[in-house]
Amino acid sequence: MLKVALVQQRCSADVAANQAESESQIRRAAGEGAQLVVLQELHSGLYFCQTEDTGQFDLAEPLDGPSRHRFEDLARELDIVLVISLFEKRATGLYHNTALVMDADRGCAGYYRKMHIPDDPGYYEKFYFTPGDAGGELAGFTPIATRVGRLGVLVCWDQWYPEAARLMALAGADMLIYPTAIGWNPADEEAEKQRQLGAWQIVQRGHAVANGLPVIVSNRTGMEPSPDGEQIQFWGHSFVAGPQGELLAQAPADEPTLLLADIDLQRSEDVRRIWPFLRDRRIDAYGNIVRRFID
Amino acid sequence: MLKVALVQQRCSADVAANQAESESQIRRAAGEGAQLVVLQELHSGLYFCQTEDTGQFDLAEPLDGPSRHRFEDLARELDIVLVISLFEKRATGLYHNTALVMDADRGCAGYYRKMHIPDDPGYYEKFYFTPGDAGGELAGFTPIATRVGRLGVLVCWDQWYPEAARLMALAGADMLIYPTAIGWNPADEEAEKQRQLGAWQIVQRGHAVANGLPVIVSNRTGMEPSPDGEQIQFWGHSFVAGPQGELLAQAPADEPTLLLADIDLQRSEDVRRIWPFLRDRRIDAYGNIVRRFID
Repeated sequence: MLKVALVQQRCSADVAANQAESESQIRRAAGEGAQLVVLQELHSGLYFCQTEDTGQFDLAEPLDGPSRHRFEDLARELDIVLVISLFEKRATGLYHNTALVMDADRGCAGYYRKMHIPDDPGYYEKFYFTPGDAGGELAGFTPIATRVGRLGVLVCWDQWYPEAARLMALAGADMLIYPTAIGWNPADEEAEKQRQLGAWQIVQRGHAVANGLPVIVSNRTGMEPSPDGEQIQFWGHSFVAGPQGELLAQAPADEPTLLLADIDLQRSEDVRRIWPFLRDRRIDAYGNIVRRFID
Repeated sequence: MLKVALVQQRCSADVAANQAESESQIRRAAGEGAQLVVLQELHSGLYFCQTEDTGQFDLAEPLDGPSRHRFEDLARELDIVLVISLFEKRATGLYHNTALVMDADRGCAGYYRKMHIPDDPGYYEKFYFTPGDAGGELAGFTPIATRVGRLGVLVCWDQWYPEAARLMALAGADMLIYPTAIGWNPADEEAEKQRQLGAWQIVQRGHAVANGLPVIVSNRTGMEPSPDGEQIQFWGHSFVAGPQGELLAQAPADEPTLLLADIDLQRSEDVRRIWPFLRDRRIDAYGNIVRRFID
């Protein structure tokens, strides 16, 4: 059994306060026996992508910067595996949306640069983030080996792409992990809000089913205004699903939550025996997946 | 709006009676205004794959055989689009699990040979069916053009594969359609049964979300014994989901049902605008999808 904890946080513009709150929750999680703790996407500040503002690049820091060192030290002290999210400055004028994995006394075990970048009203991420490189044998989809297993860390918009989940599974991931920042447009009607929330959970629980592995999703909560008057009501609902897509734990919409769940890793072995989907993939017939559209 | 009807049937060994019941439900559906009617997998008989028995090959018929002609005539008479399922004899010793689409006065508009073939206790399909060819530009995943749209017809075990759904969507499918025969092992405990049913719906509703199109699934109902004493309790729950994975209609587990639903095809246009997943696919990084495993 693996005890995981997800930190669903409400953020402000005060980076020190946000990080102190993250640290407080991580300590609480470790006290509860969590072996793996997952923070939400861009947990150190407001979701700054609601507008396109070059001043926001001041928030970025290098892969080897203060956030990494703070949480690396914390993971070492608490003897846990910790997944954090970072607005990464890779070079002048080159930024990524990056997740880092701290593996207790090993320190930083690896990082993942978000491969799919959204761009929608209120989520102007293509302005800020360059998509992760497709380099190497694994073309950007590389599980990160830790003491609790090979973590298929992806980030937010990646969660809508079955290809990303599959590639992580094919590369040996034991679980999928999605730090996330997604919410409602308060102007939408209630039925549409529920469809969106439902779709978001269903597609990720579908990845769990299709790949026979657990899925861990940590999302932001709280209402965040933007300078132009728009706002996002982050919908929380951080969750953990087992390898049949079954919900193991789920947070509410509006409350900061430390969500704990026990994952039985043996279930993946059992489920992949009764449903051997990997056995029957038609790899001779999937070549068109790399086409934009078949027209 | 497109009115669809799914025929969830309980079958016996009496082919004439099964087909008469299908016809009766199809006529009823057309009377209710259905423009598209979908039958379940292998609706003309018992699910014969519970054992490996060469005698069962007597049940197969050619693509251009009596089942096709009967339902082709019916679709023409009722002026509907009709999806049927066939145990196809392609040549002596070569059989497929095939779906055919009848397009009203156009007759048979196309067929699809099941690409992913299961083989599990009680579902010995690899004994009976050769997987569909991966030939042609579309490598076996070819939507079938009809008066109600391009139908992404897949069959049962295909439903667990995100690749199949994606390839149909990339080839221009307006909706996905899965004739199905799946059920519970009566010996399983209730919680496991519910996880299996949930997983089956979630993964297909996930295809709807990931591809922004409706999904139509017609499943068998009823308990079917096999000669060796095993049995399958087909779990019904035929359903229709919209392009956000939202359930539009759902049949019960144990009752033969004519399930009607109205699909608003404009929703796919709207949903793909707010969630433009096709825009951001990392086709430069998906090449490993055609590998069996990355080891």
